[in-house]
Amino acid sequence: ELLQDVVAFFQPKVLAGKRVLITAGPTFEAMDPIRGITNHSSGKMGFAIARAAREAGADVTLVAGPVALATPRGVARVDVQSARQMLDATLAETPRADVFVATAAVADWRPANTSDEKIKKDGSGAAPTVRFTENPDILLTVAQGERARKGALFCVGFAAESHDLVAHAQAKRARKGIPLLVGNIGPLTFGLDDNQLLLVDEHGVRELPRASKLVLARTLVAEIARRMFADSRTPSP
Amino acid sequence: ELLQDVVAFFQPKVLAGKRVLITAGPTFEAMDPIRGITNHSSGKMGFAIARAAREAGADVTLVAGPVALATPRGVARVDVQSARQMLDATLAETPRADVFVATAAVADWRPANTSDEKIKKDGSGAAPTVRFTENPDILLTVAQGERARKGALFCVGFAAESHDLVAHAQAKRARKGIPLLVGNIGPLTFGLDDNQLLLVDEHGVRELPRASKLVLARTLVAEIARRMFADSRTPSP
Repeated sequence: ELLQDVVAFFQPKVLAGKRVLITAGPTFEAMDPIRGITNHSSGKMGFAIARAAREAGADVTLVAGPVALATPRGVARVDVQSARQMLDATLAETPRADVFVATAAVADWRPANTSDEKIKKDGSGAAPTVRFTENPDILLTVAQGERARKGALFCVGFAAESHDLVAHAQAKRARKGIPLLVGNIGPLTFGLDDNQLLLVDEHGVRELPRASKLVLARTLVAEIARRMFADSRTPSP
Repeated sequence: ELLQDVVAFFQPKVLAGKRVLITAGPTFEAMDPIRGITNHSSGKMGFAIARAAREAGADVTLVAGPVALATPRGVARVDVQSARQMLDATLAETPRADVFVATAAVADWRPANTSDEKIKKDGSGAAPTVRFTENPDILLTVAQGERARKGALFCVGFAAESHDLVAHAQAKRARKGIPLLVGNIGPLTFGLDDNQLLLVDEHGVRELPRASKLVLARTLVAEIARRMFADSRTPSP
């Protein structure tokens, strides 16, 4: 911990005084009291960004789905399960955030009906069919909010794809109306300690080659800071 | 670790020379490369039983679903994702096991079709419907095997229920044809460090009051050993 503090001390304070809100991990969408839908997201990338943002001097809140990771030092953490809980926890923080980084792998859908009791095999061998309903889009909801639209809240999205990463990432950035979208190949990163990222903005695509998630997180934080201050339309007082 | 070794040294060696096979954690049943069905099982009870069995002198193999837990000292671990992988890993070990403890919260069903690519929202707002198919029953498969039927493999099942625990546990023990079934209330234990158990056998029900999972695991290991040697129809040479 002392070493972590020393390392943190020497990171450039590019986000000093800024409030950064980060979502991380998967969501868990209950089918019954025991079972549910989730995904392979480990939360490591989001937790690394939280640590890097804190090292860069920011006041950091981390809204985390069910993951088994230690909270980075100095970071405020809110634990949630479902996409709807994650939306509520996020919207509670956005009014005072300067940066929103949506790394969480939020379930697109949840079971349309949740059973209060464990669904049992009925002995017939017949399996249930589960209908799904669409979850709220947390990133889109935040990006369409007033603070994001007037440039007071810098929104960064993540896309985890299994194929056609560049096309999907560019389309997702346009659809969400955000300045920066970070793409990665889900099956090549989930659970691992390293990753490779694709930064997609209005100017095009930049690749961050494979490195540890903490190293990538520090680069991403620097990129966010550079863009925020370049984008800033409000002249300094 | 030294303390763990010392504590282990002083546990009674009631399973000395026995081979114990344990399944633990949830399974993860893929819908596509990113998503799947799982449950809230943390694996802690199974890992505690593995540790307790090892402390009791057994040679222990732990077949673990996706959990974030350290392997207990001296225990051999096989990591799996799906119920079918867990069945394969289990059947590879049962021919030489003396005890099988099925703590894993195995998914009863898996999606009938798995997509090779991430399922995308199509923009219509329409959500997918997922058909399920029944998974193999690992405990039943092992309990119906020759070694279990002739008494060479002592099988212990677990039931995680949300309601009517005693009735469900008794019915499950009868259905699986096993000597000992351990019941617990899923939502009151998943992820926690303590638990309370219900031991159901041919004589009736015994409750182990709330305690740490390691304390309960040691009691359960002692109960298993007592029953194995009581049940033993082969006289000592």
